[in-house]
Amino acid sequence: MQVEDIYVSAPGKAILHGEHAVVHGKVALAVSLNLRTYLRLKATTTGKVCINLPNIDTFICWDLSELKQLIPYLCEKSEEKRLDAELVRRLREFVGVATENLDTCNMAILSFLYIYLSLFGSGELPSLTVSVWSELPTGAGLGSSAAYSVCLAAAMLCASGAIPTPLKEWDHTARWCQEDLELINSWAFRGEMIIHGNPSGVDNAVGTWGGMLRFLAGKIIPLSRVPLLRILLTNTKVPRSTKVLVARVKDKINKFPLVMTPVLESVDAISCTCEKVLSEMTSEPVTEEHYNILEELIDINQHHLNVMGVGHSALDTLCRVTLANGLHSKLTGAGGGGCGITLLRPETDSSIVQTTVQDLKDCGFDCWETSIGGPGVQQHSVLAVKDESPGGFEQLLRPT
Amino acid sequence: MQVEDIYVSAPGKAILHGEHAVVHGKVALAVSLNLRTYLRLKATTTGKVCINLPNIDTFICWDLSELKQLIPYLCEKSEEKRLDAELVRRLREFVGVATENLDTCNMAILSFLYIYLSLFGSGELPSLTVSVWSELPTGAGLGSSAAYSVCLAAAMLCASGAIPTPLKEWDHTARWCQEDLELINSWAFRGEMIIHGNPSGVDNAVGTWGGMLRFLAGKIIPLSRVPLLRILLTNTKVPRSTKVLVARVKDKINKFPLVMTPVLESVDAISCTCEKVLSEMTSEPVTEEHYNILEELIDINQHHLNVMGVGHSALDTLCRVTLANGLHSKLTGAGGGGCGITLLRPETDSSIVQTTVQDLKDCGFDCWETSIGGPGVQQHSVLAVKDESPGGFEQLLRPT
Repeated sequence: MQVEDIYVSAPGKAILHGEHAVVHGKVALAVSLNLRTYLRLKATTTGKVCINLPNIDTFICWDLSELKQLIPYLCEKSEEKRLDAELVRRLREFVGVATENLDTCNMAILSFLYIYLSLFGSGELPSLTVSVWSELPTGAGLGSSAAYSVCLAAAMLCASGAIPTPLKEWDHTARWCQEDLELINSWAFRGEMIIHGNPSGVDNAVGTWGGMLRFLAGKIIPLSRVPLLRILLTNTKVPRSTKVLVARVKDKINKFPLVMTPVLESVDAISCTCEKVLSEMTSEPVTEEHYNILEELIDINQHHLNVMGVGHSALDTLCRVTLANGLHSKLTGAGGGGCGITLLRPETDSSIVQTTVQDLKDCGFDCWETSIGGPGVQQHSVLAVKDESPGGFEQLLRPT
Repeated sequence: MQVEDIYVSAPGKAILHGEHAVVHGKVALAVSLNLRTYLRLKATTTGKVCINLPNIDTFICWDLSELKQLIPYLCEKSEEKRLDAELVRRLREFVGVATENLDTCNMAILSFLYIYLSLFGSGELPSLTVSVWSELPTGAGLGSSAAYSVCLAAAMLCASGAIPTPLKEWDHTARWCQEDLELINSWAFRGEMIIHGNPSGVDNAVGTWGGMLRFLAGKIIPLSRVPLLRILLTNTKVPRSTKVLVARVKDKINKFPLVMTPVLESVDAISCTCEKVLSEMTSEPVTEEHYNILEELIDINQHHLNVMGVGHSALDTLCRVTLANGLHSKLTGAGGGGCGITLLRPETDSSIVQTTVQDLKDCGFDCWETSIGGPGVQQHSVLAVKDESPGGFEQLLRPT
């Protein structure tokens, strides 16, 4: 079977407001982060299936004949919210990984093979090479695995003919219709289940739809229109455990219920106020006051996150350094180190941005100028990808 | 008329928790600050009444004959909560100050003459010299004017025979009974009304009763027993206007009611939790956990005060510098600069304290090692005052 080449990308994710509070039944706002993961699927005639992951120094090929032996173990009809357990078990055996010993590389491979076999297993298996490169740091809470899963799902659903390729001849980029996005999201979620076990579904939804999502009590609602906001994304590179931090917040709520419960309520109101302001920014002229409010909400929430005990001196440094340049920051995600976002105003001068980025790098942090609220999964023409990525997509896919 | 010499002192005040929230109907905890104001009343035979305020370079005398001319304007019966308006008017005329032009010196003089004439006006005016010196910085929100008024009231009520001197021959210090304290407080409140116009009554109550007071919706409740806590008191010397800061908080509540109202509730819970912990510390063995909780509440409230918009980079510096030495701080009072308190644990080594004090002084701040929760107004023997104040009380009263 011969498939068509396809180039896709999907964004990362940041939590704008409501991290931790969401665990306690409050609203969280997840936004797309325009640090993207790019995937190129290339039809080959080698009789092999290859996956090339330059970011993690991985290049593996399998003969189609090997993979064909797994087809009898596929379920007839796979459920959307549950993995084909028998296929997962056989794939683990095939790849040679014990249940408890899954590193990033093995998880990426399992997730790829699962989607490949599930989508192509009912027909003739195609010979192809999938190459994936990402601007996202891994394990930093920025949804890098979801962006990977979304790209895998979109590209292989197209290649298998389950959804059309939306790109017209004259387009540089194109997006799928709502129905196709739902299918992409459901397959990306399966990829996330393989990688994370019990994912919330927020990361793959952001990777698929982009923009902003409202997340409340397990329900994910994509918001119709949000403005694109310029930000700095800073990785303090301080390692932390989300599980430990979630437990710390819970302990603090148990220790000081009357003090902490109102703080969660205030965070909830921050998310709702922010959503309202962002919505206004798409329906009326954007004013300085809109940005003032966004900045105030960021500052307040950062204090609340400190109150919850998920701050870190590196994050304090981030806030202080950016404020010295007139910019407002908060942690994003689990906290206790990890990443922070800094809002840039439309009028923020590029010299200010460059100074701030340098100041943050001088602290030992990684820092990217990017945006939030941008599009979800996209198909690109080769030309467009080359334009967007200095050095070209081909180059990006080569291990550095 | 010949009066007895008397030496008294009264403490300053700090807000432990609830500043600003109290304006919006929440609990505040006011504590005595053991930076004290000392007053010496000395009977003379010069036929003059003199006031000596070395801290503000003031030494003024009046002939008794001059002051006697004001007696006809005294009300027969002065009310506790309202000033004798006619006397105030005549005193302003006498001292030569326009209504709008009251500096610290003029307010101190007016307050002194008001209490002197009110208490002695019905009999023969005594010839005396009152000298007042304070460890408290003025205008820093530490209740220096209230400590002054409390000392004036206590000393002149004793001198007039309205209350007894509690000091026994063998005592170094002594306190008055509850009934006498109430009289002292009511006259100190009159002094505060002259100085502040419309005082809350908290500062003079703390100066009178010492320890800790619960302040809620205008009601002041002295707490029966509180532990003495070692602290650092730091004056950032950043000037601020309480009125402007109170307005800023109000504006923020109006701007973000759903975000800010829970923050005030959380502050209320902090005050109540703190009161409970302090009460436990007097009735059961003090543990490390008691201090852990006090530190956590300080940190949380400092974040909340930042959320209210009454923080300042100098206060952030104070918190950061003390935390680098393992100590927890918050602003006290209006914020926006001004003063902060840092809790010292019983086991905090004096070398840590000295290092921290030096670090804070290196930031350009004034810093005192002192305590909160100590006694209110006291009478001292001359010997005791000499012991407590290096160089002796006599020396302290001389302008430096």
